[in-house]
Amino acid sequence: MPGNSFGHLFRFTTFGESHGPAIGCVVDGVPPLIPLAEDDIQIYLDRRRPGRSHWTSQRKETDQVRIVSGVFEGQTTGTPIGLYILNEDTRPKDYEDIKDKFRPGHADYTYYRKYGIRDYRGGSRASARETTMRVAAGAVARKVLGDGVAIRAAMVQMGGLKIDRRRWDWDELDKNPFWCPDAEAAKEWETFLKGVRKAGSSTGAVVEVEARGVPEGLGAPVFDKLDGDIAKALMSIPAVKGVEIGAGFGAAALTGPENSDPIRMVDGRPAFLTNNAGGLLGGISNGDDIVARLALKPTSSIPIPQPTINKAGEETEIVTKGRHDPCVGIRGVPVAEAMLAIVLADHLLRHKAQCGG
Amino acid sequence: MPGNSFGHLFRFTTFGESHGPAIGCVVDGVPPLIPLAEDDIQIYLDRRRPGRSHWTSQRKETDQVRIVSGVFEGQTTGTPIGLYILNEDTRPKDYEDIKDKFRPGHADYTYYRKYGIRDYRGGSRASARETTMRVAAGAVARKVLGDGVAIRAAMVQMGGLKIDRRRWDWDELDKNPFWCPDAEAAKEWETFLKGVRKAGSSTGAVVEVEARGVPEGLGAPVFDKLDGDIAKALMSIPAVKGVEIGAGFGAAALTGPENSDPIRMVDGRPAFLTNNAGGLLGGISNGDDIVARLALKPTSSIPIPQPTINKAGEETEIVTKGRHDPCVGIRGVPVAEAMLAIVLADHLLRHKAQCGG
Amino acid sequence: MPGNSFGHLFRFTTFGESHGPAIGCVVDGVPPLIPLAEDDIQIYLDRRRPGRSHWTSQRKETDQVRIVSGVFEGQTTGTPIGLYILNEDTRPKDYEDIKDKFRPGHADYTYYRKYGIRDYRGGSRASARETTMRVAAGAVARKVLGDGVAIRAAMVQMGGLKIDRRRWDWDELDKNPFWCPDAEAAKEWETFLKGVRKAGSSTGAVVEVEARGVPEGLGAPVFDKLDGDIAKALMSIPAVKGVEIGAGFGAAALTGPENSDPIRMVDGRPAFLTNNAGGLLGGISNGDDIVARLALKPTSSIPIPQPTINKAGEETEIVTKGRHDPCVGIRGVPVAEAMLAIVLADHLLRHKAQCGG
Amino acid sequence: MPGNSFGHLFRFTTFGESHGPAIGCVVDGVPPLIPLAEDDIQIYLDRRRPGRSHWTSQRKETDQVRIVSGVFEGQTTGTPIGLYILNEDTRPKDYEDIKDKFRPGHADYTYYRKYGIRDYRGGSRASARETTMRVAAGAVARKVLGDGVAIRAAMVQMGGLKIDRRRWDWDELDKNPFWCPDAEAAKEWETFLKGVRKAGSSTGAVVEVEARGVPEGLGAPVFDKLDGDIAKALMSIPAVKGVEIGAGFGAAALTGPENSDPIRMVDGRPAFLTNNAGGLLGGISNGDDIVARLALKPTSSIPIPQPTINKAGEETEIVTKGRHDPCVGIRGVPVAEAMLAIVLADHLLRHKAQCGG
Repeated sequence: MPGNSFGHLFRFTTFGESHGPAIGCVVDGVPPLIPLAEDDIQIYLDRRRPGRSHWTSQRKETDQVRIVSGVFEGQTTGTPIGLYILNEDTRPKDYEDIKDKFRPGHADYTYYRKYGIRDYRGGSRASARETTMRVAAGAVARKVLGDGVAIRAAMVQMGGLKIDRRRWDWDELDKNPFWCPDAEAAKEWETFLKGVRKAGSSTGAVVEVEARGVPEGLGAPVFDKLDGDIAKALMSIPAVKGVEIGAGFGAAALTGPENSDPIRMVDGRPAFLTNNAGGLLGGISNGDDIVARLALKPTSSIPIPQPTINKAGEETEIVTKGRHDPCVGIRGVPVAEAMLAIVLADHLLRHKAQCGG
Repeated sequence: MPGNSFGHLFRFTTFGESHGPAIGCVVDGVPPLIPLAEDDIQIYLDRRRPGRSHWTSQRKETDQVRIVSGVFEGQTTGTPIGLYILNEDTRPKDYEDIKDKFRPGHADYTYYRKYGIRDYRGGSRASARETTMRVAAGAVARKVLGDGVAIRAAMVQMGGLKIDRRRWDWDELDKNPFWCPDAEAAKEWETFLKGVRKAGSSTGAVVEVEARGVPEGLGAPVFDKLDGDIAKALMSIPAVKGVEIGAGFGAAALTGPENSDPIRMVDGRPAFLTNNAGGLLGGISNGDDIVARLALKPTSSIPIPQPTINKAGEETEIVTKGRHDPCVGIRGVPVAEAMLAIVLADHLLRHKAQCGG
Repeated sequence: MPGNSFGHLFRFTTFGESHGPAIGCVVDGVPPLIPLAEDDIQIYLDRRRPGRSHWTSQRKETDQVRIVSGVFEGQTTGTPIGLYILNEDTRPKDYEDIKDKFRPGHADYTYYRKYGIRDYRGGSRASARETTMRVAAGAVARKVLGDGVAIRAAMVQMGGLKIDRRRWDWDELDKNPFWCPDAEAAKEWETFLKGVRKAGSSTGAVVEVEARGVPEGLGAPVFDKLDGDIAKALMSIPAVKGVEIGAGFGAAALTGPENSDPIRMVDGRPAFLTNNAGGLLGGISNGDDIVARLALKPTSSIPIPQPTINKAGEETEIVTKGRHDPCVGIRGVPVAEAMLAIVLADHLLRHKAQCGG
Repeated sequence: MPGNSFGHLFRFTTFGESHGPAIGCVVDGVPPLIPLAEDDIQIYLDRRRPGRSHWTSQRKETDQVRIVSGVFEGQTTGTPIGLYILNEDTRPKDYEDIKDKFRPGHADYTYYRKYGIRDYRGGSRASARETTMRVAAGAVARKVLGDGVAIRAAMVQMGGLKIDRRRWDWDELDKNPFWCPDAEAAKEWETFLKGVRKAGSSTGAVVEVEARGVPEGLGAPVFDKLDGDIAKALMSIPAVKGVEIGAGFGAAALTGPENSDPIRMVDGRPAFLTNNAGGLLGGISNGDDIVARLALKPTSSIPIPQPTINKAGEETEIVTKGRHDPCVGIRGVPVAEAMLAIVLADHLLRHKAQCGG
């Protein structure tokens, strides 16, 4: 399988480069008779769009999605849904002076070594612009999951600054440009990020994503465990270097009794009193909230000169201009939500197939 | 796709339960003409075998592997390699008194809810016993990779106790029962683990796995990035709750210049002066060491009573007897190596297909 | 994907060679809670077994199947079903004198050229012995389909001798060694086949397979049409050189009105008055009987000397001894049934996933 | 897997409906550094285009293909190739009066029963218009195969009229509107087809497709045999009801010695003196020409009234207007070539992966 498709039954395939004419995707396997309009997708794209605040890339893209197929009279037909977005504000010229150099931290070097050819225009296929189509497909995935499943993400750490989880308030997310659930942390981050940008630098971040209302039983052991697929989905997002579920790396320092989530009956239904498991046991959803975190490295495109080499194998320096986010974690938030939705939609269909769910 | 297969071109499919007559797997897609004998697999199985030290399960299994097909006169033929191991020391009776209760932290509850049926004998398919076949397939994967690629893992944290990386010595690994590269830490851990066991408890751990000599260019962007597939492979190992690559979660706290790995020419070849990337850029191997870490939760099977419910939905307590590891991280070491080998072998073949590598 | 697996959601993977210690398969994706015992599989294996009549290979195999996993207390658990059969009557020595020659019509030449190695013992992996596991998996597939779907096949042509379809009687099948539905044709065939064998020759055949009671809606356009998957499934059976659905090649000579199957209401339900479509429209089942035919070439293993070359590229002759069927079409009958059952079970699950069927 | 993708390593995914705004596809897995321009694809599209002669649909489509991604400075980059064609001459109104009726022989009934919704505009996704993208992807596949592999098809039977194979002349194909290699048969067919059209009827056909220069060793036994994948690829073409390889159904009537292709050394190389095998042994290419035939049913869209029912389950009649081919076999010729090219390209990459070919 080439690598530009994701999912087994809910499956999407993307194409397009950062500075090409358009990007698009095909979402296949969607059940029929689901109401779907371009607006249902657009609301999520708008959350990810560059230029949404002055903390993200100033590239001017309306990111207006078009549905080309798979929908008839407002409903899905069960046939492939073709989606595309025209790239409007491409500036391939911005990259001509670095076309023979490899930007550290970017895929320039590895694409060139793998394929023997490098489309140097802004990362091209390796640009985070491809995540637009993840968000589009994620919007369709949410429709497949239905209203009972709620997926949302928040930034919980910028640089070394973590939120105070006791102040967590989902309503804060739309009130700051960082999708931060802690109003005070958001203020700190703003000050911090100003300094970062002023220094011509960038910063990493941690995003937390959760899904509520996930039915019990999703996941396909032993290799297609739900956590395994979530890990793959999140790790494939550009700049992500770590993924954890529930207690995550913290679980390493716990004892068995501390980590164990006791099971009791609450309101006549089984309930886990704690959720170190992050909603997953043996790779199968247990009905509790699915909780994952992903670490994103600092943006590699920075105006500070960095040591590198060129195609000829000569040592040189590089300064990355262009229009870049000082903290890619910000735009990682809607992308993480989308990928979690996609994994869940895929496993929902897989579960229905085998267990009739 | 049902979930008991892994890989696309190097692909293995496992079957068998912890207390059934046998476990086995089929390894398909192996290139022909590779010398392969049972001993080549056995050496890795012996590293994972229960009872290897008194810190792992005392179940008595010789784990003697048999090659049923796919090898002729000592060489692979390109046809599927059938492998199996007889289960010798099964004790299904050990589990009869808990057959109607759900062990917290185990897959008991979710399997029952997913499938409507539960084979209660020792976790059955969800038992870590299935990892035996990961190790067997991993041994074949190493043969596919060849001698130029060296894959090894070590435990770097037990409970809250981390190694001192300055004392890292690969030669120490075989000198202690924990695959610990730091002789002093190993001593600390022994004392610590004695206390854990005495308390009827268990502990989590962190394992680090690396691959040296990996050719440049492996990985299939954008969804089948090498790091994405590594994350899935490691996260699917029982008890794993987190996976990170290179600087991992630590990258969140770094600035762009700190995280960037400068590229220079060393001995006439491109070299990365640091390896925060963990050997991967844009999901493609850059020739540097691939470095990943995985967090394993503490063993859920503990003799301390834990609150749970039974099938009838009544609250009760459970005490897990049986023969269990106080720290599953120990046996996670050879399993992590195997899974990394499998991912690399698969991507090596995928790369050859598209790029002729 | 390596080639030893078939199906997407109902998926089986086979291994083993004709003269190796055992053959086996893993059937993955089976829904849970289906009653399944070895006998349910054995009855179909017995129909395919060599030595069933003196018109098939005299190799002595009891073909006793064992279930290793995936069934607990008589029911499927949703985990992979491991199956194997020990090879009992292997005679690798029979093949030593031809180990450097390529048998015309066999895979000897192509395996050697593809893999650079040839397991010369009776065709090894390319032997029709692998079809045993198709029949075993087919028995499981029938369980997934349930009693409402009836799949059966018959031989309708041996050499140039066709049955008279007006005499078609399913009850005749078990009364002759050829699965022939026409008692008179069966007698003719017996005389004919005696002559063929006496001449040291072999003959081709045509098998017809049908499925009754298939629900409407199975099939996944546009590339995974049900007829496409049936064609692949049947064409992959050893010796098959042609597959047709409904009117098949005969449809080429028809006019539109002749070929069109009129739709009427019969007993209050839609009904097709004729079935040139063979139960499929646009690759999706229409509720009518699915009807396919497959042409099998004459057995290539014959004692008449045939011109060939050896590994060294020298011209020579070959005489194939061993214990071979004079008409492989006979044993093709249960194999064709099995493959049709497998395709339908797979598409039933796929349909459930997307359309909730 | 949903059904709108084909191939494993060379893999394409199509979308779009007959009367929607556009149709398109994504071709993934293409090796890098292959020169590719829109013209390379257009020449094959022009051969399939409606309105090419007065014997095919008079729908006015320029079928101008656009490459959106995956090509940089005239070469493939190894990233997904996005292709699309705008539908220019859609006439959804043509279908409004039949929107509640099911056209016999079409997918109307089965799509409605499968999905619970029917896009009634000209067959929509089930229209042969989707084959445009097969031809486009086939053009890319030819590039992957390289100039050494030549793939071409011809019509060999129209209605009951077969060509005389002794008059076979590939140069005749472009001289008549039927891709007929026999000049005399072409004349007969023209007269015949005039009568068919005058009668408001349609006719079936048989197409033969061959590939020369295919390397030895392609094919992945036992389920992904090259003949199995060819059968699936050709059977999935709209209107196809039968597929055969080499001697095909004729092999059923042959004896072993008649069917056997003797192997000799010719010009110092192994050669098969006959080709009943159609270039395939054990599902693997033997270096000889691969030869397949496909039977296409007569066009179901005919102006003669046919008995059918409507959505309400009432009996009625239907007359199909619109702009239809009297013999869909004609346009099946370039589509058959494309599908064979695609199967071979996919297996070429698969073979390289495992065997290094």
